[in-house]
Amino acid sequence: MIGRLNHVAIAVPDLDAAAAQYRTTLGADVGPPQDEPDHGVTVVFITLPNTKIELLYPLGADSPIQGFLDKNPSGGIHHMCFEVEDILAARDRLLAEGARVLGGGDPKIGAHGKPVLFLHPKDFNGCLIELEQI
Amino acid sequence: MIGRLNHVAIAVPDLDAAAAQYRTTLGADVGPPQDEPDHGVTVVFITLPNTKIELLYPLGADSPIQGFLDKNPSGGIHHMCFEVEDILAARDRLLAEGARVLGGGDPKIGAHGKPVLFLHPKDFNGCLIELEQI
Repeated sequence: MIGRLNHVAIAVPDLDAAAAQYRTTLGADVGPPQDEPDHGVTVVFITLPNTKIELLYPLGADSPIQGFLDKNPSGGIHHMCFEVEDILAARDRLLAEGARVLGGGDPKIGAHGKPVLFLHPKDFNGCLIELEQI
Repeated sequence: MIGRLNHVAIAVPDLDAAAAQYRTTLGADVGPPQDEPDHGVTVVFITLPNTKIELLYPLGADSPIQGFLDKNPSGGIHHMCFEVEDILAARDRLLAEGARVLGGGDPKIGAHGKPVLFLHPKDFNGCLIELEQI
């Protein structure tokens, strides 16, 4: 069911410093910051040859990553995103297997403009998993 | 400098359950468990179309991931591994930029039989980064 690893998302306490570090110290292809007000984050995309890293920084008062940064002030890996062909079929399979889908189970439009779902970390070895329909 | 994302490694409290979950619930291509006594882990490789997930479980009394599981009993993302062409050149660039290389800075032979280095998580937004020479 799951296909490519679309991205790994890292919450960071200083977006400019993290972007500069990936660009200069690690020599990666780092894009400009992009505000995503609907998702409460500013994002920097890092393009690797086979996948992407997304640096996340809180935007606005109700950012979904503020709590994560409060618990992890140095930052950390926030989630990983797997691609699926049919997000409703994926959701139904997960629910039938007893996994919990966050937010009521209806896909939302994610930061890439495509339908996404998030799965409960406690059901998946402490990892927050995003599924994105491609 | 960094190339492909070689793998994301997830420390898990129950290797059989995690492997079964990726195989059955998430429908991924999941290999058999492989003991890596030199590295203190049993590993299950999950092959995605563009990269790998590695499930890690402690092996032996001095496993390097036991402390992580003690702190994170549900498991969690332990590290991510980027490929580099020349690990000594990568190390020298990192040291020149002020980043800390764990374990004295000499590459070791990793679980894939190739030279690896680990970078200090406090220097990289709380993320443990492995570099592997390909």
